[in-house]
Amino acid sequence: MSDVVSLLAQIEDTGRDSRGPGYQRPGFSSTERELREWFLAEADARGMDTEVDANGITWAWATSPGENAVVTGSHLDSVPGGGAFDGPLGVASALAAFDELKSSGALDRAQRPLALAVFPEEEGSRFGVACLGSRLITGAIDADRALGLKDANADTLADVATGYGLDPNRIGEDQSRLAGIGSFIELHVEQGIGLAGTDEPVAIGSSIIGHGRWHFAFSGQGNHAGTTPMSHRADPVVAASRVIGDIPVLAAAADARAVATVGRTLIHPGGTNVIASSMSFWLDIRHADDAVVTRVLEAISARAKEHATDTGAEVSISQESYSPTTFFTAELNERLRSVLPTAPMLPSGAGHDAGILAPHVPSAMLYVRNPTGVSHAPEEACEDDDARVGVQALAAVLERELGAEAGSGSSAGSAADSSGGGR
Amino acid sequence: MSDVVSLLAQIEDTGRDSRGPGYQRPGFSSTERELREWFLAEADARGMDTEVDANGITWAWATSPGENAVVTGSHLDSVPGGGAFDGPLGVASALAAFDELKSSGALDRAQRPLALAVFPEEEGSRFGVACLGSRLITGAIDADRALGLKDANADTLADVATGYGLDPNRIGEDQSRLAGIGSFIELHVEQGIGLAGTDEPVAIGSSIIGHGRWHFAFSGQGNHAGTTPMSHRADPVVAASRVIGDIPVLAAAADARAVATVGRTLIHPGGTNVIASSMSFWLDIRHADDAVVTRVLEAISARAKEHATDTGAEVSISQESYSPTTFFTAELNERLRSVLPTAPMLPSGAGHDAGILAPHVPSAMLYVRNPTGVSHAPEEACEDDDARVGVQALAAVLERELGAEAGSGSSAGSAADSSGGGR
Repeated sequence: MSDVVSLLAQIEDTGRDSRGPGYQRPGFSSTERELREWFLAEADARGMDTEVDANGITWAWATSPGENAVVTGSHLDSVPGGGAFDGPLGVASALAAFDELKSSGALDRAQRPLALAVFPEEEGSRFGVACLGSRLITGAIDADRALGLKDANADTLADVATGYGLDPNRIGEDQSRLAGIGSFIELHVEQGIGLAGTDEPVAIGSSIIGHGRWHFAFSGQGNHAGTTPMSHRADPVVAASRVIGDIPVLAAAADARAVATVGRTLIHPGGTNVIASSMSFWLDIRHADDAVVTRVLEAISARAKEHATDTGAEVSISQESYSPTTFFTAELNERLRSVLPTAPMLPSGAGHDAGILAPHVPSAMLYVRNPTGVSHAPEEACEDDDARVGVQALAAVLERELGAEAGSGSSAGSAADSSGGGR
Repeated sequence: MSDVVSLLAQIEDTGRDSRGPGYQRPGFSSTERELREWFLAEADARGMDTEVDANGITWAWATSPGENAVVTGSHLDSVPGGGAFDGPLGVASALAAFDELKSSGALDRAQRPLALAVFPEEEGSRFGVACLGSRLITGAIDADRALGLKDANADTLADVATGYGLDPNRIGEDQSRLAGIGSFIELHVEQGIGLAGTDEPVAIGSSIIGHGRWHFAFSGQGNHAGTTPMSHRADPVVAASRVIGDIPVLAAAADARAVATVGRTLIHPGGTNVIASSMSFWLDIRHADDAVVTRVLEAISARAKEHATDTGAEVSISQESYSPTTFFTAELNERLRSVLPTAPMLPSGAGHDAGILAPHVPSAMLYVRNPTGVSHAPEEACEDDDARVGVQALAAVLERELGAEAGSGSSAGSAADSSGGGR
């Protein structure tokens, strides 16, 4: 059995970004598939039964499958140029926590089933919708809409999922599988500076703040860069760029804690000596208060229309996804706090599968300290010792959920009783 | 024999842009190769001897090869999303003018050799350097530097040229071939509105205005779009976009006739939920007065440094290419004016192979009316009748250069005499 650090080392060369530091692990790609094979082999080596469900979520059963299961896991895909820990830390920690529970004998005392889960396309880097696996199983995204999503090569999810070994006709909401989950706990590297510089290597998630994505499409008149006077242009690149340049000021004016980002654009046709005919950008806005998200969007949309008009271009704006602020399950979090009494509670600006599952099954998160506070970039970090403390925390939480504490004995009664009931 | 309209119709389906209207005919691509094969077949059908020289320039000899040759031609590559005429009109017109000279008997009276030429990678869309074929043959670009140029797939020109059937060791300056050219005349669709709405379908080129390309590379700190407060960001997309948004104002402030364009950008890593770590854009500036180009560049560079500093990003600026204003050969233009007395003289904001050749061999251009004035976009246009008038004009100019006017007889003397001497 390997500890969490050596487990991560096994995949450190998989999906390296050939264009620079960091990783390229797109959802449903051959790289994500290779990482899934690694997980399946590790689960198999531990004697777990594994299955890939209709939505591409991989399950490994640490005990016989059953109702009211305790489930832990995360994802293995990355954003373009992402770091080593976002996703894989939670998966490797789940395997390491299993080893911990096995060697301590806790697994033998478990009153509930335990499963490990790996979710596909969590980042949404390929099809534009984050947490796609958890959105599909919960019905948070309509299966038909999802199957028609296209990646940058214009391949649909239906095409890609088929290549991934899935049946497009079976993709979608799966309430019976959800009903079998009694608790879901996702461990994740922290994506901000909430723990950096503190004495606490692990935090408990309180909420995931509201998060939306919008597509801004500017169109103008394509023309020759050398022969078209500045006064005769309708340049969508100028209009869109002016909006992007104004976003930090508009977001700050709406609320000091609002964040609004453009990290992806598309210019057509994209020649150096060509005034473009169109330019798109994707806008990401987040804030704990949905009204603030709306206010930021309205301010940016109004500015986009002004700049479009001023440059003779046109703009259309469409919503790609929106998730209001989600609070993790209070009773489950109370139990996490009883096991980890000094761990601070942290809200998350980042979306997670646990946040999508939370309205459907009791869900919680543990965050492990990130000394740089950087995320979605190669500088994302996690100290080895912190990763090991994270595994201890996860194992302790799982042991409590499983009703398997050493003092609880084999007569601890039903799972509901052992966990304080009422979940 | 086909007229110019039906010649263009033969290639109207080659290299259609699958992403939208217009064409994708990148330099040295299989599409450009297919177009070259079409040209070779047409030349062959007319009994011409053909060759592809060391720099990928395709030559078709209408007569026996020799010194003091009259050469006409253009290019077959396009910008991304370009129109049907930019390049191909000049090549099809050369073939049609040959037919005209042949059927009128002028070719039999020619005192000088006649050749048709097709230049590769005129647009510079693939390797970033416009007029690459003419820059190579004239030594305007160093062969070693050119061979190391990389396309978007990081393939070098050396790699790509090899696949195109060229020997990288032979690529570069070729003064002996240049010395054999007595006159070069390129016909091209007009890329502005100089002729639209006038009674003249054809103009004579006076000059190509100064033109440079610069690469602006902004770097910042990649991070998570949801977890990084606006105040903690160093976002290169914001910095670069603010510069792009300011360019029209800065260019206009420097000079009302200056043009400055950004039509191509690159964001790394390019995820919707990722604050980028870097963003590049390519800036195209043109003006007849080199000092104005410098002034525009300096204003934009200064603004780039301000915006980079304000956002915590960094910027580096490098020149990719620069061509000062080039005047076409005065004596050759005098002869064109004697044949086309009503044709207006037009400066060009667009670069051309004829402009690169002009300092080395007597060079001139004919522009054919473009009713939309749009260029480097699918809306680029040329009426059939105008295209046919363009061929008549080209044929008349070639006949004059060849010393083959019907009245000049076979005793017209040397080519130098027949063309007024002194070229």
